[in-house]
Amino acid sequence: MTTIFDAPDEFASTALAGFCQIYPNHVRLIANGVVRATKVPDGKVSVVVGGGSGHYPAFAGYVGQGMADAAVAGDVFASPSTAAVARVCRHADNGGGIILGFGNYAGDVLNFGVAAERLRAEGIDVRIIAVTDDVASASADEHAKRRGIAGDLMVFKIAGAAAEAGLSLDEVERIARHANERTVSFGVAFAGCTLPGAKQPLFTVPKGRMALGLGIHGEPGISEQDIASATDLADVLTDKLLAERPAGCTRVAAVLNGLGSTKYEELFVLWTAVQKKLTGSDLQIVLPEAGEFVTSLDMQGCSLTLTWLDEELERYWAAPCDAPAFRRGRPEIAELRTDVITDEEAAPVIPAASEASRKSAACISDLFARIAAMLTDKESELGRIDAIAGDGDHGQGMQRGSDAAAKAMAAAVSAGAGAQTTLALGGDAWADRAGGTSGAIWGLLLRSWSSALSDNDVPDEAAIAEGARRALDAVTSLGRARIGDKTLVDSLIPFVETLTEKTAAGKSLPEAFKAAADASSAAAEATAALTPRLGRARPLAEKSIGHPDAGAVSLSMVAQLAAGFIADRG
Amino acid sequence: MTTIFDAPDEFASTALAGFCQIYPNHVRLIANGVVRATKVPDGKVSVVVGGGSGHYPAFAGYVGQGMADAAVAGDVFASPSTAAVARVCRHADNGGGIILGFGNYAGDVLNFGVAAERLRAEGIDVRIIAVTDDVASASADEHAKRRGIAGDLMVFKIAGAAAEAGLSLDEVERIARHANERTVSFGVAFAGCTLPGAKQPLFTVPKGRMALGLGIHGEPGISEQDIASATDLADVLTDKLLAERPAGCTRVAAVLNGLGSTKYEELFVLWTAVQKKLTGSDLQIVLPEAGEFVTSLDMQGCSLTLTWLDEELERYWAAPCDAPAFRRGRPEIAELRTDVITDEEAAPVIPAASEASRKSAACISDLFARIAAMLTDKESELGRIDAIAGDGDHGQGMQRGSDAAAKAMAAAVSAGAGAQTTLALGGDAWADRAGGTSGAIWGLLLRSWSSALSDNDVPDEAAIAEGARRALDAVTSLGRARIGDKTLVDSLIPFVETLTEKTAAGKSLPEAFKAAADASSAAAEATAALTPRLGRARPLAEKSIGHPDAGAVSLSMVAQLAAGFIADRG
Repeated sequence: MTTIFDAPDEFASTALAGFCQIYPNHVRLIANGVVRATKVPDGKVSVVVGGGSGHYPAFAGYVGQGMADAAVAGDVFASPSTAAVARVCRHADNGGGIILGFGNYAGDVLNFGVAAERLRAEGIDVRIIAVTDDVASASADEHAKRRGIAGDLMVFKIAGAAAEAGLSLDEVERIARHANERTVSFGVAFAGCTLPGAKQPLFTVPKGRMALGLGIHGEPGISEQDIASATDLADVLTDKLLAERPAGCTRVAAVLNGLGSTKYEELFVLWTAVQKKLTGSDLQIVLPEAGEFVTSLDMQGCSLTLTWLDEELERYWAAPCDAPAFRRGRPEIAELRTDVITDEEAAPVIPAASEASRKSAACISDLFARIAAMLTDKESELGRIDAIAGDGDHGQGMQRGSDAAAKAMAAAVSAGAGAQTTLALGGDAWADRAGGTSGAIWGLLLRSWSSALSDNDVPDEAAIAEGARRALDAVTSLGRARIGDKTLVDSLIPFVETLTEKTAAGKSLPEAFKAAADASSAAAEATAALTPRLGRARPLAEKSIGHPDAGAVSLSMVAQLAAGFIADRG
Repeated sequence: MTTIFDAPDEFASTALAGFCQIYPNHVRLIANGVVRATKVPDGKVSVVVGGGSGHYPAFAGYVGQGMADAAVAGDVFASPSTAAVARVCRHADNGGGIILGFGNYAGDVLNFGVAAERLRAEGIDVRIIAVTDDVASASADEHAKRRGIAGDLMVFKIAGAAAEAGLSLDEVERIARHANERTVSFGVAFAGCTLPGAKQPLFTVPKGRMALGLGIHGEPGISEQDIASATDLADVLTDKLLAERPAGCTRVAAVLNGLGSTKYEELFVLWTAVQKKLTGSDLQIVLPEAGEFVTSLDMQGCSLTLTWLDEELERYWAAPCDAPAFRRGRPEIAELRTDVITDEEAAPVIPAASEASRKSAACISDLFARIAAMLTDKESELGRIDAIAGDGDHGQGMQRGSDAAAKAMAAAVSAGAGAQTTLALGGDAWADRAGGTSGAIWGLLLRSWSSALSDNDVPDEAAIAEGARRALDAVTSLGRARIGDKTLVDSLIPFVETLTEKTAAGKSLPEAFKAAADASSAAAEATAALTPRLGRARPLAEKSIGHPDAGAVSLSMVAQLAAGFIADRG
């Protein structure tokens, strides 16, 4: 279990600070992440990687010459916020564009995706690479749906080497995507990990058994069997991967990854059997690795990753690099940066707004002050609902996010912002402070909604309904949840559809909003009958049937409060 | 627990083979160890390190430019045999002499010490360095009695750098001893490790508690307390070490070492508190490290090691190096060795012997054939006695060792060896095949005994008694056990004293031997009342009161059989 910490909620940020104290010649600490401590040529493509903490050396341990330029670190097993990703990218930008790499998980896809859009709006060319190597999480013809596990190392190492070689953003992106397409992993778990401060492990595996295909945050595996001998385990791991060997491929990069409590000597024992199996299949193994590269706190288990090499991929896999947790060959010595890194954010630019739109903005700000008060009140209730199928932090996230949004909106109104700007800045503040998947979704929802408003006109029924539609589109396209997945989308869809229908039918805004809120409430209740979407820990998921989804419930609460507020104001 | 293996008794050797497959540019596999894969200048002092397996990266992970030249690997938590140490040293010898480094444990002290004596007899200048950094195992004024834990890294790194710099053997030895004198460690354990194939952990720590000062094989700690916060744990670790800070010392090398299942992010969290504490004590920390450097399989816990630096120690601590598990700076690229390493041992040289001594040799060989048969018979009984306070392998070790000795003696007799040579070669074979502490002791005992015999004269009572005295002296001086420690020494001392007394009083050999054997049997029984010596796992140690010591018992069994044999032959 995770034993050493002061306060569990400071575990990830303190670990990152300690890491930077140990590796001052490699990395410098910034807010929410690290950047290289060494100078980088102007115009070099930057490789920025990241995700939740608890996976060391992923991702900060990959930062250094020949690998990544920066890493973003979220809380333990939680995606960093959109603002955190954007902030780290701005520090890492060398003028050559950014490759933004992360494992394919809902929260990361959202936060990194939205951050990329924000950065593009600021003129930084950003390409996102979601690593999808875990063969257990989707079939070969649905490669893009797979989760990212230890394949992160191969994809980021290869992308980092291509960037270091001075290739263009288009080329580095092509090579990184190619590396991802040619990378497959399969893992087993013998025992689950324990989050800092938690009394129980995130999941358990029965004694003497091993779970096959389990994810690195306790996501469900595909099966379970008795613990195998090293030789049989090598068969289990390699058979699954060799089934996806491309025709004609004879050379392969291999990484045998320990998940935390499976030790190096065990990995070396297993490696002898894996090597025998691979060479027996007429594969040449190029620069294999056995060690800890993508962990899951103190989880017991391991995974095997293979990258089917061609001449180009092999060149970048073999290139020298020097990161705290991955070093190869003898890279040139780079000079240390000596500039002062400042983490002060520029104050947001407030565009000029009409008197009428400023009045609307004040009204929106009032609404969100009430929403924040209501969510503070409901924090423990939402936490309780979330704890049944999740980690119980939904109430806290909603409280933190809405409170930050209300404060940002009040500040925007004081600074003379119109309706669009006020709603957008509120959304950004929500995403940044709330963190996690729900924070990103609420931030995206508000910012997308704002795009249908303006800083000049008073929003009419049509603009408000159009905003709701855009919010739904953004959330479903970036968040990838579908109706029935037991997420906020289950109550958002009936809300938006009812609002659209009623306003199109000429109903007043209070009437339309009330009907939409009622539809969302009914839908939130109905999520109790659903099984949760894949991606949550199995033992918890089973318990959640019969209980509504916390995200769907909190959305309907906000909708009801908004409907009442609109009815009061007319 | 240790989960991945095929056969538990092949775990250590298979892990070593896998390690060499992963790091072919650093190491080459030889019997019982590894040597550098790169060329070394002629005349360079060799640094050879080693000990039991289960401590990766100690010790094979330290082999590479700027660090060690070779590593010897025993079985899991068991010292390599004398022959194994000697064999690896012969491969690592560059003509400049050898620094032979190991942690201060009875089995290692014996096997490395006897190997050093053998190598010196072959003309290789060998200096032994037993690392003694663990402040919990003895007080500051008994520094030489302390165990070696993660201080191994500092001492071997500094010695390796001094050797790489081209210093003489005297100088490297002086610097290594100086580094050891200035190195202190203190550790805590949260949970015990599980040996490959074992059903239960080697020891347990009550839930929510931590054991202070525990060794890396489950040796007893000095106390137990509730698990502390990171800040309080940093106080526990640093206070103990700062109490031994030399006057005027302002610069310190620091290593925060994870024991296996305590993860990097936990170490980084703890490091922030350790760094605060050390810098708050006006210490400059030079190139700190946090990670896994000396582990104990999957043990949960950590230790802090400090080396009080002066200009010389700092220079070698900071010097570049490139070992699989420890890399610093940018060492020069060394060429790979291309020579074929052969592990064939030369056949032993058999000196000419008189007819009479060859007859005595045949008699000794017969005796050991009977001893081997008897110990095969008693294997499970000795294993059962040993399992009460030890790891239950004493019967196996005695069987393997005596069988090898009997075979080597028979071969020596066939080759025309006299009494001295036959007994000496039997002892070497015993030590080599039995392994562990008891194997080394029996090998030493027989070889020392042989030194009082000759290949010309028939041994008389005085020579036999003198041989017994030499055997006892060698065992107590190298093995460091005293009477009452609940070891073989408890029955060896009365045996030798009685034999000496009776032969001096003019008794016949059969009479004297019978009296000595009876004295040893009585003493072996009496060990039941003793508490075992420090160095064994605490929970097991407590159980052992009321049970005789397996080593003392097996020695008395051999003495009784020999007395009967001598009586039969007259």
